[in-house]
Parts: sequence; C-alpha cells; structure tokens
Amino acid sequence: MVGGGFGGLLAVRGLRGADVDVTLVDRQNFYLFQPLVYQVATGSLSSVEISVPLRQIVRRQRNARVLLGEVDGFDLERRLVSVLGLPNDGDTAELPYDLLVVAGGSRYSYFGHDEWAPYAPELKSLPGALDLRDRILLAFEAAETEADADARQAWLTFVIVGAGPTGVEMAGQIAELGQTLRSEYRAVDTRSARVLLVEATDRVLGAFPDPLPRKAERQLRTLGVTPMLKTTVVGIDAHGVEVEDAAGRRTRVSARTAVWAAGVTASPLAGRLAEAAGAETDRAGRILVEPDLTLAGHPEIFAIGDMVVVRGQTLHGVAPVAMQEGRHAAESIRTGTRSPFRYHDKGELATIGRARAVGTIKSFKVSGFVAWVTWLGVHITYLIGIQNRVVVLTRWTFSYVTRGRGARVIHRRSR
Amino acid sequence: MVGGGFGGLLAVRGLRGADVDVTLVDRQNFYLFQPLVYQVATGSLSSVEISVPLRQIVRRQRNARVLLGEVDGFDLERRLVSVLGLPNDGDTAELPYDLLVVAGGSRYSYFGHDEWAPYAPELKSLPGALDLRDRILLAFEAAETEADADARQAWLTFVIVGAGPTGVEMAGQIAELGQTLRSEYRAVDTRSARVLLVEATDRVLGAFPDPLPRKAERQLRTLGVTPMLKTTVVGIDAHGVEVEDAAGRRTRVSARTAVWAAGVTASPLAGRLAEAAGAETDRAGRILVEPDLTLAGHPEIFAIGDMVVVRGQTLHGVAPVAMQEGRHAAESIRTGTRSPFRYHDKGELATIGRARAVGTIKSFKVSGFVAWVTWLGVHITYLIGIQNRVVVLTRWTFSYVTRGRGARVIHRRSR
Repeated sequence: MVGGGFGGLLAVRGLRGADVDVTLVDRQNFYLFQPLVYQVATGSLSSVEISVPLRQIVRRQRNARVLLGEVDGFDLERRLVSVLGLPNDGDTAELPYDLLVVAGGSRYSYFGHDEWAPYAPELKSLPGALDLRDRILLAFEAAETEADADARQAWLTFVIVGAGPTGVEMAGQIAELGQTLRSEYRAVDTRSARVLLVEATDRVLGAFPDPLPRKAERQLRTLGVTPMLKTTVVGIDAHGVEVEDAAGRRTRVSARTAVWAAGVTASPLAGRLAEAAGAETDRAGRILVEPDLTLAGHPEIFAIGDMVVVRGQTLHGVAPVAMQEGRHAAESIRTGTRSPFRYHDKGELATIGRARAVGTIKSFKVSGFVAWVTWLGVHITYLIGIQNRVVVLTRWTFSYVTRGRGARVIHRRSR
Repeated sequence: MVGGGFGGLLAVRGLRGADVDVTLVDRQNFYLFQPLVYQVATGSLSSVEISVPLRQIVRRQRNARVLLGEVDGFDLERRLVSVLGLPNDGDTAELPYDLLVVAGGSRYSYFGHDEWAPYAPELKSLPGALDLRDRILLAFEAAETEADADARQAWLTFVIVGAGPTGVEMAGQIAELGQTLRSEYRAVDTRSARVLLVEATDRVLGAFPDPLPRKAERQLRTLGVTPMLKTTVVGIDAHGVEVEDAAGRRTRVSARTAVWAAGVTASPLAGRLAEAAGAETDRAGRILVEPDLTLAGHPEIFAIGDMVVVRGQTLHGVAPVAMQEGRHAAESIRTGTRSPFRYHDKGELATIGRARAVGTIKSFKVSGFVAWVTWLGVHITYLIGIQNRVVVLTRWTFSYVTRGRGARVIHRRSR
C-alpha cells in the first residue's frame, strides 16, 4: 500500500480483519486532511489540527504496519517496491508484495514554469501552506511600516492563480483576513487589501453546474475579491504578476504575494508505475487503469485516487472519488474478485467565506448559509479523530463569533 | 517597549488608558507562552496553541502599536532605539523614545560549546521545540526500521541536559511518549526507550526547597527516567553524549537524540544596553538594575525580566518575576514615580508527568496529584485568549484520558 492519503488510508482500513498483511508506506508520518490546508495558510487552523499520525490511525489494526519512506521504483516482475528509508537517511529497502495498491495523489504543476514556484507557493502540501501563512502575515506587517503608497499597495495585493475550489476558498479567506485585521493595525487600513483571482476559463468553480459558478462569483465580489476571468498568467516574480487577457493584452499587477492553485499533475509515482507496467499516462501524468482499478495485465496491482484515470469514466480529482476507490480496492482484495468501480456522487461543496458556500448535494444545488452549514458538517465528519474534530469546531466557533483567526503565527522571518 | 514576552507584555498592558504612546517592538509577531514550549516538543500541543499574535493582544489598546523588528542598538544620549525592520528586509529605523522599557529575556547557552547546538536543540524557542519534535518522532521511526540492536537502542536513547523545571518536564514527557507509542509500532518496543537526565548538581529541580527535589527524583524514576546527578556533559555529537561524573570518570552514551535545557544566558540586548549606559553585567550576561528597575543614572530606562539582576535581590528567571516587574515598570511610568520593586512569591510548580508534579504554593510544599491539578489551573489561567484555553484544555483532557498525544506531526524529513 503506497500513500496514506484519502485513497490509501481507506484501502488500508478496508482490509481490517482481512487475512492479509498490510504495509503502508508514506513519505510523511501523518495523514493530511487536504480540503482544509488552505485554512492553515490563512491562520485559521494549525497544521496539526488537520493532521493525524498514520500510526495512530492504524494502531488497533493488527494486520497493518506503517513504514516511513519514499517509494522510488517498482519491479513488477520480481514484485518488489524499492523504498528510500527516510528516518535513517540513505537506507534503501526492497519491499516484496503479493498485491500492490498505489495511491500517490497529485500535486500542483506550474505549467512548465517551475521558476514561478518560489514566488507563488502551492496550496496542496503543509510546507506550502505554512510558507504562505508566513508570507501573507508578513505582507500586512510590511504594509504597516511602508511609507510609500504604491509600495504599500503592492504589499496589500494578493493574486491567487486558479479559481477551482481551493483558489476560491483561499481568495475568500484572504479577503476576510483583511477585515479581521483592521483593528490590529494603526498605520494601514487592512480593508484596502486587494484580492485578485486569476482564472483562464470564463467562470469560477468551473467543475460545478450552473448557476453555481455565477453565484460563487457574486459571493466573491461581495467579499471584496476581484475575479479576473479569461485571464492567464504569463509571468510571476517577487514584485508582481503579469497577466494576459482574452484579447492578448498583457498587464502587470504589482503584488508581493501570489498563491498557486492551478494546474494539477499526478504524483511522479504514476509515471514510474506506468513505465514499469507499460501503461499509458495522460497529459496530466495520470496513469490509465482498467474499470476495476487494476493495471491492464496486472490484476495484482491497483492504482487509485488523483493519480489515475479510470478507463471509460470521467472523475474529478476530489477526496470522495479517492476514498471510494480505496474502499473498492480493499473490497476486491478481500473477496479476491475484480469488479468495475462505480462512483457514487454525493455532491461537492466549496466554501467562499463566513456563512457563504455553494455546491451540490446529490442532485440538488445549494448555496449560501445552507451550503455552508452542510460544508461544515461534512468536513467535521470526515476529519479523523475526535480530538481534531473538537479542536477544529472550537476554532471555527470562535472564528464565526469573533471573526478572529486563531493561528496567526509567523514561523520564519525571512521572506 | 522592547520585547513582547511576559515582562514586556505586562508593561504594555499596564499602560492601558495612560496618557502615553506605546510602541512594542518584537522580533516575532506573537507572544509565546514559554512554560509550555516543551509540550510542543513532545507533540502534546501545537505551536499556535501556545502563541497569540501581539497585535491581537493589544488590539483594543488604542495607545499601543506593534512593530515587527529586531532591536540592535541604543543611543541613550539622543534617546533612540535602532530597529532592523524585519518585514521589509534590510530596512533600519531609528525609533525615538521618552521612556524605554527593555525586556529581552534569556536564552540557553551551551557553556561556550556552540558546536553542540546542532546535536542538542534548546527548548526555549519555538523553532528549537519544533526541531526537537521532528527529531524525537523520527528517532522512534528510525528504531522501527533499524535491524541492528545496538543501533536501535541508540535511536531509543534520549539524553536531556539540565534538570531544572524544563529538563524535568521534558524527561517526563519523553518517558510517557514511549508508553503512548507502544501500540503503534510493530517491530520495536517503544517502552524500552531510555531517558537520561544529566545534571551537574546533586539534585533535580535545585531551585525548589527540600524535600521536593527528592520527591521529584522519585517520581521521575517511577516514570522510567534515569537521573544522572553530579554529572557534566563534556561532548555531544550526532551519535552520542560524553559525560563526566564527580570522580572525573568519562563515559560515552550512545544516543541519537539530545535535548539542551541548561545554562541560561541573558539576551544580547542586555549587553548592548549595558554598554550604552555604562552599566555592569554578571556572568550570565544580565544587566544590573537599581531596586526600582531603572538603570543607574537613567531614570527613563527600565530593564526587566530574565535579562536583569535587581540590585540587592536574588530572583529566579521565571515568568512571575518578569510579569510583576513589567507591571511595576508600567505603574512607575503611569504615576511618574520610582519606587523599589518587591517580588511577591506565590510559589513555583513543575510538572513531571501525568498526574505528577511538585512545587510550592505560597509557603506550602505540594507534590503529586494536588500539585499537578494546581499546575494545570495556573497554566490555563495564564494562557492568553479564551480560544487557546479551550483548545489546550481539550487536548489535555484527551491526553489524560487516552494517554495520547495530539500533535505528532513531523514537518521536516531531514535529520
């Protein structure tokens, strides 16, 4: 079992009590509740409040063990996974398997512009989110001491690239942060912060059905976010972002803080597995799997989650898909059968700000307060661990009542 | 006002509503509740749960503003403080003052052996604590994958240098962590972890009155900690610690993790201020102040907290002293008078583990469960912010009931 995200973890748990020995390999010692990572970036939650040690999760599952390490290759013939042992730097181990489940997930890609990465951290990993938290908070600090008006406005301008759920949620949070901070600064009016949401298509939340994108856009504008649709990013550096509109006109926006939330690509594990198995990958680096989630010609290997495309199906790279695929793989292993995976769409939700959200619940479209409460409920339910649930609920209650942010700590001082 | 620790913050708050303009300068954007830093190092609490943004604390105090920056010099003649502006790297500002309160605190010193620092992080700052958390958790991970018995034992051996309150608390926590983790590892028995507490004097908690040091030592042994008294450290590297006993015999202990909790020295600000004012400093770098907490010949300058020695008084470098000094300085400024500071000793407490603590409450000596409950109450009371109180209390309740640790996230993977 490779990868302790939504898919991998559900696969492990699905094998509880089964007559198999499960080894879960992950680079990190914790499971990260990715849908809330953006709340770490804006100082609403602490990183540990959305993470649970993998060992703790499978503590009572006697047939499972956890190995902290990085998978860097597959030998399908000899049925070996090679693992770089991380605690003891430099150790490599060859792990034999009878059945293999690979769930490496995805990451953001900078469309071939990796030189942008230092100026626009991504929002999928904890280090990215913590880096962003520092940058966002330091930007307000810098604005407070900056005498020049233009330079100050550049510190107070935030560009978010990509208007998927993460980009939208992040934009809403930064706009709200500007409101929250207004009483804490003396020289600067934090409400004058500009939040620009750059999106290449003609709508925000493009994966959601009409009229939700339009509603979300309206809610964002109410919060003070400026969506810049049909606009692509052509350059990012420490002082700003250059964008191009649909007519090909280029504009430079002075902004000291940029956030990357666009262009998902599969984990490199997908490519390595595809190479070993002679399988296809798509443009986003995802490996093609059979309808039963196994690799063609390798019924002993399952690949699931964000890093795969299921033959004949179009599925979003969202947590529920990965979770259901994980459960399906476990069930197939447990019963020794292979059957086609079918996704049960229970809906999708994106929150935009305090008491604002849009989404679908089964086939109903919801927005506003109802959607927001549902979003809260769903996220609390799927957070692992009672302790995290209580702590996160506490923080959210305080945020709701006081509009405060409980986790605004700048760890690193360098920018 | 320089420094937003216990002393500086109480001085700022003591000036609420007074007819003065207060500028609080600190390198960090948050106040850190230092007595609980060790709980971050052992994964019991998250760093943000014991930190509160300074701006948030003084939000409603209209005569106060916060400046994020590092003080690097004093010009007493022209009454200027020079500040390196941190948000905008490289900016320096000269801050004029009429009255100055310096509260730079203290840090650990490696007795002139700074080369030990990379192998034995200190426990006073958040970066040190987070570094230690990674190391401690990775040590258990490494032990799990280590085949060689001696090497494994070295991963499971933890040396804590210094048996003051922090060292004792840390030793107890690591011992308990070994118990907590036992059900999560398959190859290794985490209860076989050895925790060695090295102390140069003949007792632990030397600042506490008899018979508390003896009681604390007994409680530590019950937890599985081995106090090594009358023992000094003569060398630390990545693979172990060399110690010397009272008879001059040297022994090498194979240990992959060491913790530094000894040898406090004053902030460099004490030295810089002393130089500017022509004041004396003691061996620990602390500046000598008059009984009214001002510098001799400079009634406009107060120095308080861990970085000072008050003429004619022997005070411990503990939070209550700094807090009372901060309040005294504020009162003196408010009334325009200078009067001798007098410390009201309400007692001191050190926790050793679950339901174990020792201490004094006024003139009573307490130990065991009563001391522990008092410790809990005092620490929750002095934590700033209702939100942090609720969150920390939640975590402690879970820890008490489940013996779990809620914040066991390894952020960095390199060791």
